[in-house]
Amino acid sequence: KRVREYGIKIGVLPTGQWNAITDVPGVQVGQVTVVKGQDVRTGVTAILPHGGNLFQEKVPAAVFVGNGFGKLAGSTQVRELGNLETPIVLTNTLSVATAMNAVITHTLRQPGNEKVQSVNALVGETNDGGLNDIRGRHITEDHVLTAIRKAQSGAVEEGNTGAGTGTICFGFKGGIGTASRKLPQSLGGYTVGVLVQTNFGGVLQIAGAPVGEELEKFSFRQQILEKADGSCMIIVATDAPVDARNLERMASRAMLGLGKTGGIASNGSGDYVIAFSANPGLRVPYETIQKTQTVTLLRNDEMSPLFMATIEATEEAILNSLFKAQTTQGKDKTSVEALPLEKTIQILKQHHVIRP
Amino acid sequence: KRVREYGIKIGVLPTGQWNAITDVPGVQVGQVTVVKGQDVRTGVTAILPHGGNLFQEKVPAAVFVGNGFGKLAGSTQVRELGNLETPIVLTNTLSVATAMNAVITHTLRQPGNEKVQSVNALVGETNDGGLNDIRGRHITEDHVLTAIRKAQSGAVEEGNTGAGTGTICFGFKGGIGTASRKLPQSLGGYTVGVLVQTNFGGVLQIAGAPVGEELEKFSFRQQILEKADGSCMIIVATDAPVDARNLERMASRAMLGLGKTGGIASNGSGDYVIAFSANPGLRVPYETIQKTQTVTLLRNDEMSPLFMATIEATEEAILNSLFKAQTTQGKDKTSVEALPLEKTIQILKQHHVIRP
Amino acid sequence: KRVREYGIKIGVLPTGQWNAITDVPGVQVGQVTVVKGQDVRTGVTAILPHGGNLFQEKVPAAVFVGNGFGKLAGSTQVRELGNLETPIVLTNTLSVATAMNAVITHTLRQPGNEKVQSVNALVGETNDGGLNDIRGRHITEDHVLTAIRKAQSGAVEEGNTGAGTGTICFGFKGGIGTASRKLPQSLGGYTVGVLVQTNFGGVLQIAGAPVGEELEKFSFRQQILEKADGSCMIIVATDAPVDARNLERMASRAMLGLGKTGGIASNGSGDYVIAFSANPGLRVPYETIQKTQTVTLLRNDEMSPLFMATIEATEEAILNSLFKAQTTQGKDKTSVEALPLEKTIQILKQHHVIRP
Amino acid sequence: KRVREYGIKIGVLPTGQWNAITDVPGVQVGQVTVVKGQDVRTGVTAILPHGGNLFQEKVPAAVFVGNGFGKLAGSTQVRELGNLETPIVLTNTLSVATAMNAVITHTLRQPGNEKVQSVNALVGETNDGGLNDIRGRHITEDHVLTAIRKAQSGAVEEGNTGAGTGTICFGFKGGIGTASRKLPQSLGGYTVGVLVQTNFGGVLQIAGAPVGEELEKFSFRQQILEKADGSCMIIVATDAPVDARNLERMASRAMLGLGKTGGIASNGSGDYVIAFSANPGLRVPYETIQKTQTVTLLRNDEMSPLFMATIEATEEAILNSLFKAQTTQGKDKTSVEALPLEKTIQILKQHHVIRP
Repeated sequence: KRVREYGIKIGVLPTGQWNAITDVPGVQVGQVTVVKGQDVRTGVTAILPHGGNLFQEKVPAAVFVGNGFGKLAGSTQVRELGNLETPIVLTNTLSVATAMNAVITHTLRQPGNEKVQSVNALVGETNDGGLNDIRGRHITEDHVLTAIRKAQSGAVEEGNTGAGTGTICFGFKGGIGTASRKLPQSLGGYTVGVLVQTNFGGVLQIAGAPVGEELEKFSFRQQILEKADGSCMIIVATDAPVDARNLERMASRAMLGLGKTGGIASNGSGDYVIAFSANPGLRVPYETIQKTQTVTLLRNDEMSPLFMATIEATEEAILNSLFKAQTTQGKDKTSVEALPLEKTIQILKQHHVIRP
Repeated sequence: KRVREYGIKIGVLPTGQWNAITDVPGVQVGQVTVVKGQDVRTGVTAILPHGGNLFQEKVPAAVFVGNGFGKLAGSTQVRELGNLETPIVLTNTLSVATAMNAVITHTLRQPGNEKVQSVNALVGETNDGGLNDIRGRHITEDHVLTAIRKAQSGAVEEGNTGAGTGTICFGFKGGIGTASRKLPQSLGGYTVGVLVQTNFGGVLQIAGAPVGEELEKFSFRQQILEKADGSCMIIVATDAPVDARNLERMASRAMLGLGKTGGIASNGSGDYVIAFSANPGLRVPYETIQKTQTVTLLRNDEMSPLFMATIEATEEAILNSLFKAQTTQGKDKTSVEALPLEKTIQILKQHHVIRP
Repeated sequence: KRVREYGIKIGVLPTGQWNAITDVPGVQVGQVTVVKGQDVRTGVTAILPHGGNLFQEKVPAAVFVGNGFGKLAGSTQVRELGNLETPIVLTNTLSVATAMNAVITHTLRQPGNEKVQSVNALVGETNDGGLNDIRGRHITEDHVLTAIRKAQSGAVEEGNTGAGTGTICFGFKGGIGTASRKLPQSLGGYTVGVLVQTNFGGVLQIAGAPVGEELEKFSFRQQILEKADGSCMIIVATDAPVDARNLERMASRAMLGLGKTGGIASNGSGDYVIAFSANPGLRVPYETIQKTQTVTLLRNDEMSPLFMATIEATEEAILNSLFKAQTTQGKDKTSVEALPLEKTIQILKQHHVIRP
Repeated sequence: KRVREYGIKIGVLPTGQWNAITDVPGVQVGQVTVVKGQDVRTGVTAILPHGGNLFQEKVPAAVFVGNGFGKLAGSTQVRELGNLETPIVLTNTLSVATAMNAVITHTLRQPGNEKVQSVNALVGETNDGGLNDIRGRHITEDHVLTAIRKAQSGAVEEGNTGAGTGTICFGFKGGIGTASRKLPQSLGGYTVGVLVQTNFGGVLQIAGAPVGEELEKFSFRQQILEKADGSCMIIVATDAPVDARNLERMASRAMLGLGKTGGIASNGSGDYVIAFSANPGLRVPYETIQKTQTVTLLRNDEMSPLFMATIEATEEAILNSLFKAQTTQGKDKTSVEALPLEKTIQILKQHHVIRP
């Protein structure tokens, strides 16, 4: 069950219909889980800002680097041009290049892109080498193309799925998580959706309660100071009419949501936030005879509710990834347990997070 | 009383002796509180990385811009050269220039600086215009020079003092707060000290408990969406041998501590973190015949405990600013209440933050 | 005489009417020159993006830090919010704070700003301490207010004037310079105007000719390696409808123009570029009931001609500052010669820059 | 012949022995040229900071983004950790992913790296799609592994070679170019070497002379404003003991060298500079029991000569790429002419660049 089904409330804003990144109209998610034998525990998660030809109709986007110890591909062009032109793909650290090749293949093949000679593939990763034979590089281009093809609206699978198949978070099994917030009409009525791939450490807090500490799963020696090549990828989508500059501001707030779960953005944790606006009025056409584009943008002064929505949805998405993940055995017979929900619920009741 | 005196524990690391920024050897703090008539509620807080001639012996430093809607002076030179050369001074938004002039005066006058022709004053601010007649610009150069001169080691005054005299935080009276963490010897034994000037909004959480929500003090309309020109200044000091690049990484983590108190880095909140190393072996001499400098620096791999210490100390410093602040009446008879401690303690007990 | 009056052509694009930053409609420049006794050689230059209330009608803006060894005030807010709200003021290094106070005074006093409590003064500087008794801090708030008040359209005074009164460039007398470019209608017909305060070193080149080398004025020991606390301030204005992100891209190109004059952005040279759009359709109202703003913006694809115009105008503005400057005696009887124009012209003829 | 063999002198500093990036002790370059049939004109250039195991002995490094319209992989980790851990590989835009996979393969295979699970491949590109069937993605992992294996010290092949096989610069055939500067002992005696992959536009200047304009090869319509997906990659190596912060400062100066050749960093031109120090004393061990590292670093004050050396070597490397390139026919029978050297020399004599 997801966090909210236990009566745990994160923040003060209401969620969207699915409480998922797909609550932002047009956004689609597709995932491929790759589990083979005892040692392969990995996968691919693709996020599409819209279902059309993204190269021909780019969307405003921004990247915020919370901690750069990671291999995110494509960030400098997003920063320079303020938009993204491909699906966002998440996978494991050593498969970023293969995923890039697949994204390029996908883009070159799309009808209308016959003359395209330059593609900025946006591919993020975390390191699932604790449970997955990452050196084996088991992700193929086909896996990625399938994830893109399977992308759809509606509910999103969480936990041990897609790019979260082999990840570890706060010493427990991590994975994919998602959540959303819908602002009241008086604040614009916009939706903010977040999807995360969780693979980081710290001292777990759930809705503020010191669950990690009480479960004694936070020890410095084991979770924090050991070499942690993992990363946390955070994707933030909105339908608010926000340009690249304000998307970057939203992206930076997602880190506060990560902080609220007890994450510390440790040295080895590459934490990246990619934010985009799926607002149809802001699409950037690749080819046009127009030299200017007329856009209606939210003013700076109206951004605060979107910041709050980003923080809340990020916190909840991370927690969902933990709640939905399952105990997993992988490479070298390593086993990583899921968050012990029974004990956790008990602690949350004790701390009045879940009203008894 | 401070947070910890109520039995509230923030994080898992031990504090330093004073639980203050001054636990970092050499660091001094001086404050001047300016309260006049009904309308003047402001002041100055000065932080000195060491007691010597800072211009002649600069210290490694970094600035992280959490949200740039503020007037911090001096950041680009710190970024370029990786060091700071003056006391750090905090005051109100419209008095930054006066404080800069005072810092320049202080530096030009110091023995040994007779030929100095360039001074990078590092001055931060938050907007205390809710309680203070900020347009009157009541801070004088003398106030700033006095704060610098009074700087000393040991316990630091908190709450309505110095640059925190007129600030507002989460709808309650904010102010100056401080805290520290001391790593165990196995992690290097280093100290991290934080001092904050709190003047921002969000939904207050104390050690994770939803105090703001339960006190009904978080309404969007009143606290978050109204024009908030305030800022949160965060100063992070350490004796760890850390260079500018890793200090910038520490600085960025302080934002996670702010997030854990419920801050959202709203549009109008200029949130800046200044981090410096007071480690004596890293002083940068202004004049020397040496063309190189030999330094012993902490490796990247050893940074995570310092990140965690920064997050914890920031969270606790912010809470200390609230716990030590007092109800204040100011400009136009505006009154801002202190955090209602009795009710707060009750809520914290209910949430098991304070063990009954 | 200015560069172009000698038949020297910089680049391939045509200039505007005045070949000045004021060719951008609405932009005004005001200067105050402060020369007293033997030791005071300084001043103030103010650039106004438009003649109205800048705080109430902000303009899109960006800052690019070429080399951050300088004291530019106001950059982080410009970066965060994407706009500027005051006149841009240039002066000497140790008078930045006084200029800020004056800009705040100016803003607080403007009709309509009676309730304003936060002002982001944008003040740049270079260090004229070679010719000026900079430690005496001879700039007063009145000087700055006068420069703002005197601001007007039309021709701009260059050389030893305003903030360029005491500056040194390539070992010769520097100062204020300006230039502009007007794109052909087929490229949008936009104007780019640049104003510079030149106070930096390197090996002077004029339209590519190695003038510095041939005049033997480039020696490492004397011009480059000696402590040079100077800075080069570059202000770029345009009427093209360009947002903050693309203004930052234009700003970064100005450094290429500086490079073409032989500047090397030496360690001690704080090189900052401030770019803004004076396009009336992009004004950002301070107060409005609208939550969104509709703007018509130039597409990324159309930026290249503006980049080229920025580079050309910057190069020519720097050269104009040298051509119009005059030999000056200042502090401690230091004398700095103007560029020896006769010899220079000869060299330029030899190198076919001036067609014989 | 190279620029200097025609008696053309760029700047005022002496070159190293080979006038190549390999003048920096330890640096090696390997190239593979891929020419097949009529349509394949591409290749790979690998730069190795030292000949050992780069992952085990990382080197201080920095990336400066001149214009981010490109696909450089690996930049955020370099920025965060201040070092690089693989060979730098240059290739074409759509082959970055394949090159990354090869760099990962190379690293995983190196003796001593048997347990490595995370590799930050640093791969740059420019778009050779004008002459090369770039959509065919003809670069294989083997090509890249061969380039790395072939890397050696000594003279470097220039022009139509390696990653420069199919590139176009200022409308002429571009390619790979290199140059170096050796500072006099009084300035430290350090070497700065630069290698470029040139594929950009503007108005060509050679040692300041307006060659592009006189050859009528600069027209806006054709060279500048047409969609130019190209990029300029600039690699800067030094043996000076410079840390990541000062390497970033050196990197930013390389753009001034590009500017001096007439480059404008047009919208479509992704211009990246990667700088590293090959100084043996600064190697960063991957595994060590030491928690600190003692390093001897050049002071900020000593950086200016290195900045100047970077600018000069970049300018000369770009020109070498043009002088050594040859007329090439490629995809769709497109033909790109080499710089017409005879006419060019004539123009340079007229402008006194080459003394008659």
